[in-house]
Amino acid sequence: MSVPQGTSGSVEISEQELALATRNHGMPLEALRHEITPIGLHYLLIHYDIPVVDAAGWRLEVGGLLERPLELSLEQLRARPRVTAAVTMECAGNGRASLSPRPLSQPWLLEAVGTAEWTGTPLAPLIEECGIAAEAIELVFTGIDRGVEGGVEQFYERSLSLDDALGEDVLLAYEANGRPLPPQHGYPLRLVVPGWYGMTSVKWLRSITAVAEPFEGYQQARGYRMMRSADDPGTPVTRMVPRSLMAPPGIPDFMSRRRFLALGPVDLEGRAWSGLGTIERVDVSADGGETWIAAELAPQRSPLAWRGWTWAWEPPGAGDYELCSRAIDSAGNEQPLNAEWNLKGYANNSVQRVPVQVTDQR
Amino acid sequence: MSVPQGTSGSVEISEQELALATRNHGMPLEALRHEITPIGLHYLLIHYDIPVVDAAGWRLEVGGLLERPLELSLEQLRARPRVTAAVTMECAGNGRASLSPRPLSQPWLLEAVGTAEWTGTPLAPLIEECGIAAEAIELVFTGIDRGVEGGVEQFYERSLSLDDALGEDVLLAYEANGRPLPPQHGYPLRLVVPGWYGMTSVKWLRSITAVAEPFEGYQQARGYRMMRSADDPGTPVTRMVPRSLMAPPGIPDFMSRRRFLALGPVDLEGRAWSGLGTIERVDVSADGGETWIAAELAPQRSPLAWRGWTWAWEPPGAGDYELCSRAIDSAGNEQPLNAEWNLKGYANNSVQRVPVQVTDQR
Repeated sequence: MSVPQGTSGSVEISEQELALATRNHGMPLEALRHEITPIGLHYLLIHYDIPVVDAAGWRLEVGGLLERPLELSLEQLRARPRVTAAVTMECAGNGRASLSPRPLSQPWLLEAVGTAEWTGTPLAPLIEECGIAAEAIELVFTGIDRGVEGGVEQFYERSLSLDDALGEDVLLAYEANGRPLPPQHGYPLRLVVPGWYGMTSVKWLRSITAVAEPFEGYQQARGYRMMRSADDPGTPVTRMVPRSLMAPPGIPDFMSRRRFLALGPVDLEGRAWSGLGTIERVDVSADGGETWIAAELAPQRSPLAWRGWTWAWEPPGAGDYELCSRAIDSAGNEQPLNAEWNLKGYANNSVQRVPVQVTDQR
Repeated sequence: MSVPQGTSGSVEISEQELALATRNHGMPLEALRHEITPIGLHYLLIHYDIPVVDAAGWRLEVGGLLERPLELSLEQLRARPRVTAAVTMECAGNGRASLSPRPLSQPWLLEAVGTAEWTGTPLAPLIEECGIAAEAIELVFTGIDRGVEGGVEQFYERSLSLDDALGEDVLLAYEANGRPLPPQHGYPLRLVVPGWYGMTSVKWLRSITAVAEPFEGYQQARGYRMMRSADDPGTPVTRMVPRSLMAPPGIPDFMSRRRFLALGPVDLEGRAWSGLGTIERVDVSADGGETWIAAELAPQRSPLAWRGWTWAWEPPGAGDYELCSRAIDSAGNEQPLNAEWNLKGYANNSVQRVPVQVTDQR
């Protein structure tokens, strides 16, 4: 089933979805103008409640199939080797609200993304120091946040294979943008797994557990799977597929968010990312995707973060235009005009469409 | 027309309202546990786009009917007398989405509130130093943010009478919670008018202008008015009416946000505020407002901020309860069970209802 585009004006959101939308913050797309997203503008998807954690009493338990289990205070974690990395993170459900039929969950349009500078300590050396038992195959990351989902009471938890978990970029992060994590980003400690959708980067970590069997918790076996129907076991959601977004130009109408700009040259800008490779090309269109030209790419300043692009657009005259951009990564993945529908509404990287009205005079 | 309660499960939100809800951040209600709202959890209502401002080139113009107009840099403002105040700010549209029929605008449920520690310089001495011309009656505060609303292209701007503007608590704020304003809160400078709904506290200030006639701009004469119908000129929205909110207890279901708690004593907490007086009493109910008892009030730590309250509740048995609280202020204003409907959905301080399910065992 393909995603119908341009017909979503008839979407009607339920009060449950609205309650999620008012809790879970999107990044207003004009914030794409910031290479590092200011704190408070980065997207947030919080399954249960934001815990209030007293860091003095908090400990990270590192155990399970490890030869030398550990319990670490925040001070002990901060005393370990320290790394800072700019990382682009996107919610797996970004774009969900434009799918038809619309999967019922957090109704993201396009704003579930952000890039923070995370500071923390690499995970791999910590786990290796503990001595990994031969039978261990995965690490399970468990948060302090607790709730009910799909009828199951649970702490939020997700696993990674040892290979993925011990990748060199995986961090235990205690700072964002140079300050202690704010409560909503996982204070005092969260996982950051660059390249993967955000559900992987477990917040408010309480434990890391090495296990011998594939983890079958709700967020692994039932949530975050690409499924065609309710009886399809599906495949796991993992890395971010390519996407480009544009900072909408001109000025908005408050209610409709329709954009207006005066006739004349306009510097368009946006950012693109992929968890499957580096961004090699961004194409742009002013006619809704009929014709494309290559945008100018900014240098790739951080290998784990989005890449900026610009387009010096000169509209040929007053009138209505539909601006688009699409990302192509180094692995040859091309952002589609219309992504495939799936039951839970993950990884919808259909091309963004920005209708603008160019006027002769203001 | 009164507000129907408990029937809002049938609300259906349009895509335009959803686009606003994903831009404009609410404060998840568990953040009521913080006396000072962490940056990133304070509510945000942003009419147009968040501007990117270079503070080095930015100036505040103070002019109009003043004897000695001024142009001030951020450094000059920071060199003036410095004040820090914890101020509770609420959007005038908080509660709008529960009104029926629902006014079409940002569809807030109950989360459009926050308390920040604002640091800045008092407005009154600055204006008085400029020498106020005898014919001046109001100050107009103009932001950098520009857009279209009600068919009118405009900078966001609002006025205050000289009396209100020169009140001792009114600040030109350049810091929030001890850090420079983040972009979304008005960097580099915003107005903060304690006690008033948030539309008064103009962000991204560019100018302050003394005028001889009542300001008739869109946000004053058409927006932010309590109207019964489209041809009612209405009355201006000004100060916050009393409201109390509770941090929902127990754990939530992800999708429905329904709350579950285990049988036993539970410490409930919340905060209450009013722009019309200090909070003198908060009443609480476990039966949907049939019977009420007084909650315990925390000390009023800042005169301009919300007041905490607690309630050691012991549910008499397993089952369903509807928890409520209501604020009463020193001017005798009592939060109503059901506030009056108005055309644009302002100041809906109907009592919050928190359904909870108490279970014998988990």
